[in-house]
Amino acid sequence: MRTLTAWVPVGFPDVQPGDDISSIVLDMFRFNDVAPEDHDVLIIAQKVVSKAEGSVVNLREITPTPEAKKLAAKAEKDPRLVQVILDEARAILRVRPGLIIAEHKLGFVCANAGVDHSNVGLGEDWVTVLPKNPDGFAETVRSKMEETFGVRVGVVINDTHGRPFREGAIGVAIGVAGLEPLFSYIGQPDLYGYILRASIEGVADELASTASLLQGQGAEGTPMVLIRGGRFKPGIGSLVELLREPKKDMFR
Amino acid sequence: MRTLTAWVPVGFPDVQPGDDISSIVLDMFRFNDVAPEDHDVLIIAQKVVSKAEGSVVNLREITPTPEAKKLAAKAEKDPRLVQVILDEARAILRVRPGLIIAEHKLGFVCANAGVDHSNVGLGEDWVTVLPKNPDGFAETVRSKMEETFGVRVGVVINDTHGRPFREGAIGVAIGVAGLEPLFSYIGQPDLYGYILRASIEGVADELASTASLLQGQGAEGTPMVLIRGGRFKPGIGSLVELLREPKKDMFR
Repeated sequence: MRTLTAWVPVGFPDVQPGDDISSIVLDMFRFNDVAPEDHDVLIIAQKVVSKAEGSVVNLREITPTPEAKKLAAKAEKDPRLVQVILDEARAILRVRPGLIIAEHKLGFVCANAGVDHSNVGLGEDWVTVLPKNPDGFAETVRSKMEETFGVRVGVVINDTHGRPFREGAIGVAIGVAGLEPLFSYIGQPDLYGYILRASIEGVADELASTASLLQGQGAEGTPMVLIRGGRFKPGIGSLVELLREPKKDMFR
Repeated sequence: MRTLTAWVPVGFPDVQPGDDISSIVLDMFRFNDVAPEDHDVLIIAQKVVSKAEGSVVNLREITPTPEAKKLAAKAEKDPRLVQVILDEARAILRVRPGLIIAEHKLGFVCANAGVDHSNVGLGEDWVTVLPKNPDGFAETVRSKMEETFGVRVGVVINDTHGRPFREGAIGVAIGVAGLEPLFSYIGQPDLYGYILRASIEGVADELASTASLLQGQGAEGTPMVLIRGGRFKPGIGSLVELLREPKKDMFR
């Protein structure tokens, strides 16, 4: 009987700018008396990575440009918030009252270019922006896990994104280390020997969604999840593999 | 320590048209000596539901219309396959060589309107189409679980869909019973008391993705997964809640 288990440690502290998330993660294994194993995947929520590295912005320090004011009027949003969104985005794809869909500098398409008001905890006017280098951060955690516990794990930084066609946001990977984010079945036989021609699975995103079911968005939120038993291939990995090139995207 | 566990039973048989999937599912609990519990979620792959109910098509029996032939030339696909796609779709959204993105009659936007060659096992010329009524089928399984074991579980029929912006297909729900597919955090406080205004999570899709990590697409594929410990609310549930209305969709 194959099994996948995901667990959330108890005692993950309130993260503040300047905190060392890698150390906290290592402490959680000790504190919860859990031994990580090869092929485990560690999922860490974007929010705490952003906070710890200081990827936070105080809207009171932002002076919106005329461009931001114009877009803010169209989107019915705070012009200072819209300025931060513009600073984070490399393209604005869609706008309507209450919603700006942008392509983030790192390549993700998501609401507000990842700029977010929730779970910041620094005061009413603070927002988080996406981590500067989520792949690099994932690799830092991955290598410290190997150094400290002698295990080769995958690390995924996750966020929740809305998507076209379907309601509800879901957990997705925005940073990857130690695993191949895509699992290709191309060339493999199916149950009956038919050779699969198109099946590539976004396993890093599926792992991110699995964690999201435990993390929650509210007051009970916990940023760290360990997943054991998922199907993926170890590898270097990068968020870049998950991003469709704009020119190949039929819906951009 | 909160935990989510997903397991795959051993011994799920090769499904043939006319088989009773509900009975097979009930047998799997007995055969694997697993007692289902309230709030478990049972995930069943679309492929076996389609096969069992006879939602399969032999392309040798299809005569493509001129419309299908024209689209087939554009998509560089078998005109008979394209005819089946047209029969299953209510709109064709995008076409390029090798790919047709369609809105299925049930409302999903996906490649080939869900028509699929893999894991059919009836011969080279057979394809599966989506189940006629995935919500109804999920409810049948759910009620039999309650009748037989006295437990109230959620049931999700899942498939893997590609998506805009990101590479790799992921598990999504195409039929739901016994759970609310969306989990709303709106009006709830976050960790710091900030009231969440926009967070709605597509938990049925996240459950579908979790299962997909275990199910696989290849020869080792297993259609049934039981998930324990996911965050969702029991409810009647329907795939309709997961579908964004076309006029509200900024990318259709």
